Amino acid sequence: MENKRILKERALAQYRVHETITRPDPELVRAFQEYPVAAVSDALRKRQTLPFQIKSVHVPARRIVGPAVTVLASAGDELLTLKAFQLAQPGDVVVIAGAWNDQSSVLGGVMSWMAKVRGIAGIVTDGLVRDLEQIIDSELPIHARGVTPLAPSHDVPPGDLNSTVCIGQAVVRPGDLVVADCDGVVVVPSELLGKVRTTVDAIIARDDKWISDLRKTRSIDDILETCAVDALLTGGERVCSLK
Amino acid sequence: MENKRILKERALAQYRVHETITRPDPELVRAFQEYPVAAVSDALRKRQTLPFQIKSVHVPARRIVGPAVTVLASAGDELLTLKAFQLAQPGDVVVIAGAWNDQSSVLGGVMSWMAKVRGIAGIVTDGLVRDLEQIIDSELPIHARGVTPLAPSHDVPPGDLNSTVCIGQAVVRPGDLVVADCDGVVVVPSELLGKVRTTVDAIIARDDKWISDLRKTRSIDDILETCAVDALLTGGERVCSLK
Amino acid sequence: MENKRILKERALAQYRVHETITRPDPELVRAFQEYPVAAVSDALRKRQTLPFQIKSVHVPARRIVGPAVTVLASAGDELLTLKAFQLAQPGDVVVIAGAWNDQSSVLGGVMSWMAKVRGIAGIVTDGLVRDLEQIIDSELPIHARGVTPLAPSHDVPPGDLNSTVCIGQAVVRPGDLVVADCDGVVVVPSELLGKVRTTVDAIIARDDKWISDLRKTRSIDDILETCAVDALLTGGERVCSLK
Amino acid sequence: MENKRILKERALAQYRVHETITRPDPELVRAFQEYPVAAVSDALRKRQTLPFQIKSVHVPARRIVGPAVTVLASAGDELLTLKAFQLAQPGDVVVIAGAWNDQSSVLGGVMSWMAKVRGIAGIVTDGLVRDLEQIIDSELPIHARGVTPLAPSHDVPPGDLNSTVCIGQAVVRPGDLVVADCDGVVVVPSELLGKVRTTVDAIIARDDKWISDLRKTRSIDDILETCAVDALLTGGERVCSLK
Amino acid sequence: MENKRILKERALAQYRVHETITRPDPELVRAFQEYPVAAVSDALRKRQTLPFQIKSVHVPARRIVGPAVTVLASAGDELLTLKAFQLAQPGDVVVIAGAWNDQSSVLGGVMSWMAKVRGIAGIVTDGLVRDLEQIIDSELPIHARGVTPLAPSHDVPPGDLNSTVCIGQAVVRPGDLVVADCDGVVVVPSELLGKVRTTVDAIIARDDKWISDLRKTRSIDDILETCAVDALLTGGERVCSLK
Amino acid sequence: MENKRILKERALAQYRVHETITRPDPELVRAFQEYPVAAVSDALRKRQTLPFQIKSVHVPARRIVGPAVTVLASAGDELLTLKAFQLAQPGDVVVIAGAWNDQSSVLGGVMSWMAKVRGIAGIVTDGLVRDLEQIIDSELPIHARGVTPLAPSHDVPPGDLNSTVCIGQAVVRPGDLVVADCDGVVVVPSELLGKVRTTVDAIIARDDKWISDLRKTRSIDDILETCAVDALLTGGERVCSLK
Repeated sequence: MENKRILKERALAQYRVHETITRPDPELVRAFQEYPVAAVSDALRKRQTLPFQIKSVHVPARRIVGPAVTVLASAGDELLTLKAFQLAQPGDVVVIAGAWNDQSSVLGGVMSWMAKVRGIAGIVTDGLVRDLEQIIDSELPIHARGVTPLAPSHDVPPGDLNSTVCIGQAVVRPGDLVVADCDGVVVVPSELLGKVRTTVDAIIARDDKWISDLRKTRSIDDILETCAVDALLTGGERVCSLK
Repeated sequence: MENKRILKERALAQYRVHETITRPDPELVRAFQEYPVAAVSDALRKRQTLPFQIKSVHVPARRIVGPAVTVLASAGDELLTLKAFQLAQPGDVVVIAGAWNDQSSVLGGVMSWMAKVRGIAGIVTDGLVRDLEQIIDSELPIHARGVTPLAPSHDVPPGDLNSTVCIGQAVVRPGDLVVADCDGVVVVPSELLGKVRTTVDAIIARDDKWISDLRKTRSIDDILETCAVDALLTGGERVCSLK
Repeated sequence: MENKRILKERALAQYRVHETITRPDPELVRAFQEYPVAAVSDALRKRQTLPFQIKSVHVPARRIVGPAVTVLASAGDELLTLKAFQLAQPGDVVVIAGAWNDQSSVLGGVMSWMAKVRGIAGIVTDGLVRDLEQIIDSELPIHARGVTPLAPSHDVPPGDLNSTVCIGQAVVRPGDLVVADCDGVVVVPSELLGKVRTTVDAIIARDDKWISDLRKTRSIDDILETCAVDALLTGGERVCSLK
Repeated sequence: MENKRILKERALAQYRVHETITRPDPELVRAFQEYPVAAVSDALRKRQTLPFQIKSVHVPARRIVGPAVTVLASAGDELLTLKAFQLAQPGDVVVIAGAWNDQSSVLGGVMSWMAKVRGIAGIVTDGLVRDLEQIIDSELPIHARGVTPLAPSHDVPPGDLNSTVCIGQAVVRPGDLVVADCDGVVVVPSELLGKVRTTVDAIIARDDKWISDLRKTRSIDDILETCAVDALLTGGERVCSLK
Repeated sequence: MENKRILKERALAQYRVHETITRPDPELVRAFQEYPVAAVSDALRKRQTLPFQIKSVHVPARRIVGPAVTVLASAGDELLTLKAFQLAQPGDVVVIAGAWNDQSSVLGGVMSWMAKVRGIAGIVTDGLVRDLEQIIDSELPIHARGVTPLAPSHDVPPGDLNSTVCIGQAVVRPGDLVVADCDGVVVVPSELLGKVRTTVDAIIARDDKWISDLRKTRSIDDILETCAVDALLTGGERVCSLK
Repeated sequence: MENKRILKERALAQYRVHETITRPDPELVRAFQEYPVAAVSDALRKRQTLPFQIKSVHVPARRIVGPAVTVLASAGDELLTLKAFQLAQPGDVVVIAGAWNDQSSVLGGVMSWMAKVRGIAGIVTDGLVRDLEQIIDSELPIHARGVTPLAPSHDVPPGDLNSTVCIGQAVVRPGDLVVADCDGVVVVPSELLGKVRTTVDAIIARDDKWISDLRKTRSIDDILETCAVDALLTGGERVCSLK
């Protein structure tokens, strides 16, 4: 029938699956195991940080570090996430984007156990999860927007596996490094891992020194001066004159 | 005066109170005491599940199971909830709908103790509660949208006691069974309790087997095959041609 | 296979369709053709009024009056709405609940023309619509939450046709009377149509007189006195002592 | 009874009414009649600008300029607004804060006509209004958050007349100057009217010149240079080292 | 250049700093150390209570009591908060308003330690904070809207130190008393501290008696009668006839 | 000073500017001039469609078609947008992402005239704009989230010019084709323009035929049959058995 022909001619398939991804050097990944997310976000100058509503479902938060396997899922789809579990290697982080809605979850207890069994390092999603007790029991780290009893719907196209996806302002490409802790989630573009690592080390050293000095000296004067507080507060006008 | 006459002629009273409700067979209610909310939601095929923002105010979450006494309350009203406490029987769950606003709570410490003393099994509301310490001390299970210091306003018509009410997409009738746990809240229409019970037993058995198999075999292949992941991902077009 | 057996045993079908509904007396429906929604909402004492975000997509707003054919649709489903068009009689209003999400619309240009051709009086939905130009061209009155280019997804269970549905706090049963104008939407339970009609007539007469008096006398004193403003502002305490 | 005594001892009355306010020099008020709100917001350096969701209910937007009579109203209260109408002088703007909720409006057609008859220059509220047709008919300028059929509830304490109120980050005191147009609403502290006036005149002259130059020269280079775009984009690091 | 002259003529400085504030009698402040926020909110008749989304970032919640040092900060600014730390006296509470956005925090670990070292009693903000582990380690009480890894941006005018600020409907002036616990936050105008204290004592005594009676007698009849539930539910119409 | 050294070592610059982009074949761009956004969204199978809240600020909506120049801007920044205007060629569409907040706009009247003078085809942003009257006067097409009087803040790092950006789930790369009309906005990846064009032509032909048939035959049976409504509603269970 004519109508069906039209559909078949469409530009894009309902599901697009890229089976292989390029992962960063494991040595570099290891370096990020203990980094605070806030310091990584600083090194990227606040870029690539996920929305603050995406939090660990565990109390206390469980850290996640690993290369991204990305899923662009319509709300309710679980098909691509299942495929992601099959394709993922131990240590990968499955990032499920586009899943935000309040009528379904992206996964629950059985799928959490599947991920655990596959050695997946964690799940990050802008959607909801369910079966919180089974998730906790599985010890699978998950950062998500919340918890619901609602099941996913299984097969809801369209969707892509291992395409570039968006969560908030963060662009997540397969193989980029996901780092998540109690503050939230940041995604490091794989080509920047080396530079970011160096910067994070410097940031941590500096902040540790600030705090250690504060505890020792009980004085905040040094920081106020470094930050030029009074100079900036009384400083002249900004140069721009558009408003 | 004429104006007052007009008011008295209005179709509906400010408050409408139905004093008696029909409760389900206690044996059936008991069967649901340990069911996970997610499995009940599945048996209803995702129908009748409350919005995910409504959560237990206790850490860890306290379960609630019991027949609904329903309150349709204007934001700030506590009058109908007090009346509900009077009419409720031990084991009932008071469901307070329509209460969502950010300028008042639906109840606090004193009313929680009133509910506790009456043997009420729990409270479910789309509004806020207050006096969190007293609520925790009372051990009364409450699922609500959040916590505020703000008091209710006492007497805010209109409102109905034991009418059919809405919370999200869930239709809640007096006597329907409320089930709440750490995942959220579901409401089972009383005439479906028997069928749902049978289905939930089957669902739990199947999911337990999935997880137990996963832990034993460390393989996810069986599930992927059962779910027809590859077949569906590469499957033909949907039949519809409206878009 | 065992898994499929479990699914078949489930309590509820994916789709539940009730083909026939009871419509109110056409004479009563006609009486509501010109009533302002605000006056009907008053007669119901603010009950049964839909959320204010649901607005006419036409400028100026097109009125809708007619008995409800109800659809409880998962986000993206269009199957049940198509079935509703088939079952609806000329003059019916199709109310599509549960459809709110931001990843799909509930209908667009082709379906608007289908509804128009069937003589449907209008559409009310908590979801989005698309093809605004074609909708305007069809002159089909629609109250919805907004406009998007996104298509529906066709076949997204679960869903019910002609069950009781919720939109905000309003309970909508098949055959209840939907009234929509530029202020919003109200749903009158069919058994209250006669009483509401009498009350609305009185309310309109009173408000017209208020406004006509204001324009004539240019004085607001009469209303302030009737409303007992000063008495209430300086009045004694409320009786309740719970807080 | 003891409980009632406790209530009477409370620190604050349910309603607090300040009958008189100090209005700014009418000559200064007149000067603001034609100022764009954006230019006034600039002169205040973005302070005192109301949330962008508060818009004129008229198409096209009707301007409002006048001294504030302030109402701090609980959601649904109309008592204090009625009192405000009584106390207001021609040219005043009634600002109703705290009224935001989705279960009631702050006023409708009859009260709009009351305000019109009293010569009130306009209404600004963070709540909803109703009877849109009657409002349009009355030609009373109103900036509000939206439109609903729902009535106010008349007498909902607590509330204050002519106290300092908050709408978003803007502090509104009785007698401050309200200016509203199609961009939104800004409130000028009365003691700054003279300085703001001078600045606004300069801002308008400058912006008019920018636009007139653009239309004449078809070149954007002058602005880019004035704004130091390239210098700032490639400029050195900020001085602060806290992160 | 002309454009810069215009800027310099503007009515308001980018930053306005008031260095000194008047603090309430320390004896009065001490009296509020143990008061529940809900009881204080009651004594103010629900006025001056902050939005419920602002919660302690500590589990369990840490109480805050002290006079306000107020910051009106643009989203991302940390300059004025640093200045506030310099000007604050031990026991002060720094209230940071206007800071709500999802692209930055108002402070993190280093600044929490600065506040701790200065003896600041706590921070209340409508924005986000970061470095949750360091905050917990510092034991500085903070009520905020949430947690993010994102840094502040340092120098984002405009802003005011120790001006009157708004958080929700609450007007916060420098020197007003901030009280925060697990229910939320309330701000007591300094001139009302004495009256509020007396009222809170009475409220606590009454509520304690209610709960103690409930636990002893296991009867709710006394409260239902005091609250006039049946009388109000069946009572006559309200006097107003505007709708 | 050491602190400054640390900053300079950071991985990423505050601003990153890519001056050149690759634009699609102008012949292909022209082909999209009249396409409805909904049909393009269909050809992409609902991918790459922007959030429905982003609407034309013009009444009626003004269409936008052209290759994207992308700005990733912190809330309040106008520096990168000014630079984008300088680098853009006539016919380009400036897409400003990351700008959503309620404390500033991304541009106003002067910048709209700058864009107009540069021949820019339109602006698409997830932020707010101001000076609505001047924008309307300039006839520059703008799709934005809303209107505010608030100015941008000029220089708010970090930000990128012509990097890949996210708006909702849509990934926007420099040179991708932006298409906007009264339904909303869609972004076509440049490498898919040819395929999408062919598909859109087929979709439009089919939909026009549907509507033309409906108007002629006044029958909806053909569509219902094509869409297999009855078959799908009564069809067997879905294959998956995970829930």
